[in-house]
Amino acid sequence: MKAALEVSRRVRLPGGFRFAGVAAGLKGGGALDLGLAEAPGGASAAAVFTSNRVVAAPLEVDRRHLRAGRGRIRAVIVNSGNANCATRRGRQGSERVCRELGWLLGIPSVQVFPASTGVIGVELPVGKIVRALPRLLSQRRGSAGGVRRFARAILTTDTRPKLAAAGFRCGRGRATLLGVAKGAGMIHPRLRPALRDFPRLRAGQVGGQARLSAGGHATMLAYLFTDVEASAGELQGLLAGACGRTFNRISVDGDTSTNDTVLLLASGASGLRARTRVEKRRFAAALEAVCASLAEQIVADGEGVGHVVRLRVEGARSPEEAERVARAIARSPLVKTAWAGADANWGRVLAAVGASGAPIHPGRVDIFLGPQQVCRRGKACAFAEGAAHRYLSRPRFEVRVRLGRGRAVASFLTCDLTTEYVRINAHYRT
Amino acid sequence: MKAALEVSRRVRLPGGFRFAGVAAGLKGGGALDLGLAEAPGGASAAAVFTSNRVVAAPLEVDRRHLRAGRGRIRAVIVNSGNANCATRRGRQGSERVCRELGWLLGIPSVQVFPASTGVIGVELPVGKIVRALPRLLSQRRGSAGGVRRFARAILTTDTRPKLAAAGFRCGRGRATLLGVAKGAGMIHPRLRPALRDFPRLRAGQVGGQARLSAGGHATMLAYLFTDVEASAGELQGLLAGACGRTFNRISVDGDTSTNDTVLLLASGASGLRARTRVEKRRFAAALEAVCASLAEQIVADGEGVGHVVRLRVEGARSPEEAERVARAIARSPLVKTAWAGADANWGRVLAAVGASGAPIHPGRVDIFLGPQQVCRRGKACAFAEGAAHRYLSRPRFEVRVRLGRGRAVASFLTCDLTTEYVRINAHYRT
Repeated sequence: MKAALEVSRRVRLPGGFRFAGVAAGLKGGGALDLGLAEAPGGASAAAVFTSNRVVAAPLEVDRRHLRAGRGRIRAVIVNSGNANCATRRGRQGSERVCRELGWLLGIPSVQVFPASTGVIGVELPVGKIVRALPRLLSQRRGSAGGVRRFARAILTTDTRPKLAAAGFRCGRGRATLLGVAKGAGMIHPRLRPALRDFPRLRAGQVGGQARLSAGGHATMLAYLFTDVEASAGELQGLLAGACGRTFNRISVDGDTSTNDTVLLLASGASGLRARTRVEKRRFAAALEAVCASLAEQIVADGEGVGHVVRLRVEGARSPEEAERVARAIARSPLVKTAWAGADANWGRVLAAVGASGAPIHPGRVDIFLGPQQVCRRGKACAFAEGAAHRYLSRPRFEVRVRLGRGRAVASFLTCDLTTEYVRINAHYRT
Repeated sequence: MKAALEVSRRVRLPGGFRFAGVAAGLKGGGALDLGLAEAPGGASAAAVFTSNRVVAAPLEVDRRHLRAGRGRIRAVIVNSGNANCATRRGRQGSERVCRELGWLLGIPSVQVFPASTGVIGVELPVGKIVRALPRLLSQRRGSAGGVRRFARAILTTDTRPKLAAAGFRCGRGRATLLGVAKGAGMIHPRLRPALRDFPRLRAGQVGGQARLSAGGHATMLAYLFTDVEASAGELQGLLAGACGRTFNRISVDGDTSTNDTVLLLASGASGLRARTRVEKRRFAAALEAVCASLAEQIVADGEGVGHVVRLRVEGARSPEEAERVARAIARSPLVKTAWAGADANWGRVLAAVGASGAPIHPGRVDIFLGPQQVCRRGKACAFAEGAAHRYLSRPRFEVRVRLGRGRAVASFLTCDLTTEYVRINAHYRT
C-alpha cells in the first residue's frame, strides 16, 4: 500500500465519463440512493468480486455482461438500501434495471454493469429504480458535482463519501485516475478476478456505482475511472495486482460480504496509452495508490471505529503466511477490544498469532507497539506502559509482529472493536 | 451434547478426592485465587490441551509430568489472576510451585499437575503462591464446601462457579463423576490430546484446578473427577471423544486461548471398574453429559452474553464440514450483534455460511430460526417477523442451517456479541 505518488481526495475528472446520483426512495428521507456512472464512448472494463460462495444477483449479471460484452461497459448503475442478495427474483430484477437503462441510453443491456448494496434477503424495489432512471439520466454531469452525487448515492452506513484521484504521465500527456468507494461494515474483502478468460479480451471505457444508508450490510464497492486507452485484459492484470495489496489487505469486522465489487474502467478519452515499461509502471503505481487511499478511507470510516491500526507482519515464510497471521490478529475480538481501550495487551496479539493456523514458533516472535518492543522471542520484555498507552490513544497507530521464519512481509489495515460497532449492528434492520 | 442421563449442578462427591481454595493475593481484594484438588491415593489422569501454538508454561510442565509420571497424578494446583504465559521465568515458576507442593505432600513433583489462568505476559508471583500453600493444605476437605471453594478459586471474569455431577451404574455399585470448570472469554477451544503415546499407559486416580477474576484473559479450564478405576489410556480415549462433542463445540468470542486444559482423574476409590461394553458406554455417557453441562454453563456465563444460541448445522458432507460452518457463524460479529438485538437478520447467517470456506451451494441452503423457516434454498421466504423477533428475544434459542450436501450434522453452542463484552475487554488490564 505504498503511496509512491501524490493522491488527492479531491475530484480530478478523467475524460469520457459522466456521473449522477438521485433519491429513488430506497433509503427513505430523501437520501441519495441511486447512482450512475456513464462512459458515453464506452470503456474497457475489468472487475474483481467477492469470493464468498453466496453472491448477490447483480454480481452474477456483471459476470455475464462482462463476458457477453467482451469487456466493454457503457454504464454503471448502483443502488444502495438493498443488496439484492438471496432474493427470489433478484436476477430478474437486476436484469430488468439493465434492460431499462440500456433502452434509455440506446445500448445493449450487456454494456450495463449493475451493483446493489444494503440489506440481504429483501426483494429489490425494481419499480422505484426504473421510475427514477429518467431523472437520473437528466442529471448526468461530467463535473465534480456529478461525481460527488454519485459518491453519496452509493453509501450505506458510511458517514462520508470516499474519493481519491491521481494523475500520471503517459506519452506526451497526463492521464487521470479517479476512484470512488463505499464500505463501513462487513468489510473483510477476499476479492478475486471476475473472469478467468479475461486476458484474451481487448480495449475500452466507463465506471461508477451507488449505495444506501438505511440498513442491511455494508459491502465494499469501489469504482475506478481512467481516461487512458487500455484493453480489458491489460486492466484485469493491473486491477488484480492492485487489489491484492490494498482492498484485500483491510478488515473492519472480519465478515466477508456477498456483494464486494471493484470495477476499473478505461475510457481512452485522453488518447494516451501506456506503451513503455515505465509508463505501465506509472499507471500501475497510480492505480495502487488510489486503491490504497480508498481502502484506508474505508477502514477509517468503519462502523464505530476509534482507532485505525496498521499491522505489519514481517519474517514470514511467504506473503500468504504473513497475510494469514495479519488476518488472525485483525479478526480477534480480544485484540480489537483492547485497542478500543488503548490497552497495551500484547499477550492477546501473541495468542492470536498462535491461533492463526500458521506454523509459527512462539520463541521467535517479536511484537512492537509503534516504537516500543513489548514482546521479545515470545516473552514479555520491559517497556514503558504509560508511553504505550499514550501511543495507543492516537487515532492511528502501528503494531508490528516479527515471526522470525523468513523474509516475507504483509502490511494490513484494520481497526478497533467498539461498543458503537455493536450498537450500529444490533438493530440494523429493526 | 446429548444429556442422556441426569446431570446435577450440585456437588456429588466422588471418593478419593479432597479440595481447597484460598486467597493468595494474586487477584487482590481477598478473592479466592489458589485452588487445590488432591487425590491422596493417587489417580489415573488424561488431559487435552489447547492447539494454540503459543502455550502457557504450566501446560508444558503438565505434558512432561504426565509423561514422566506415567499418567499418575496426586495433586492439581491452579492459580487464577495470572496466565503464566509468555513470561521469561514461566516454566521455572511453575516447576517451583510443583516442587514446593510435592515436598509438602511428600510426593514427587511429577505427580503435581499445575495450571494458571489470567493475564498473559506478567511474571507469575511464585512467592505469593508458595507462601499460601501451607494454608491451602490445611483447608483440604472431602466435602461439598471444599469443592465450592476450589470452584471459586479458579474463576477469572466468570460471574459464577461451574459445577456438574452425574452418577452411573457400574458393576454392583454406583460410580460418581464430578466436573468443575471456568471460562467466560477467550473461549473458542480447539483441544487435542496431551500425549500421543497415552494409550500405552495404565490405571490410576485424582484432579482439580483454580482461576482468578481480576484481569487478563479467560481461558477454559475443566477438571473431571471420578471414583471408578481406569487406566490413563482408557481415560484418554474417553476424554478425547467427550471433548470433541462438547468443549470443542462452543465459542464465546472466537479467540482460542493459550491455556485451555481439560483434565480427567480417576481415583478408583469406589473399587468399581467399567468392564462390560454397557458399563463403558454408561461411563462415556456420564462423562459426555457432565462435559456438555459445563460447556453450556461456560457459554451462558460468557462475557456480556445476553443470549445463548444453539447452532445446528445439518446436511453436511462430513462432521468436520458441519463444524467448520458452525464455527464461521459463531465467529461472525455481524451475526452475533444481530442476535444481541434479537434481529432476524438471517442474511448475515447466510453470508457467514458462504464465507466459511466450505464448498457449499447457496441454492441448497435452508435456515430456520427456531420453529420458523426464514430462508429456503438460499432465498428469502415469507415468515412472521414479529414472531421471529419474540423468539430471538428469549435467553436461549436455536438457529438451524441445512446445507443439502450430505448427512453429517454438528451441534454447536455460542452466544451474542454485546456492548457489555466490549466494555469488559476494552479495559481489562488498565
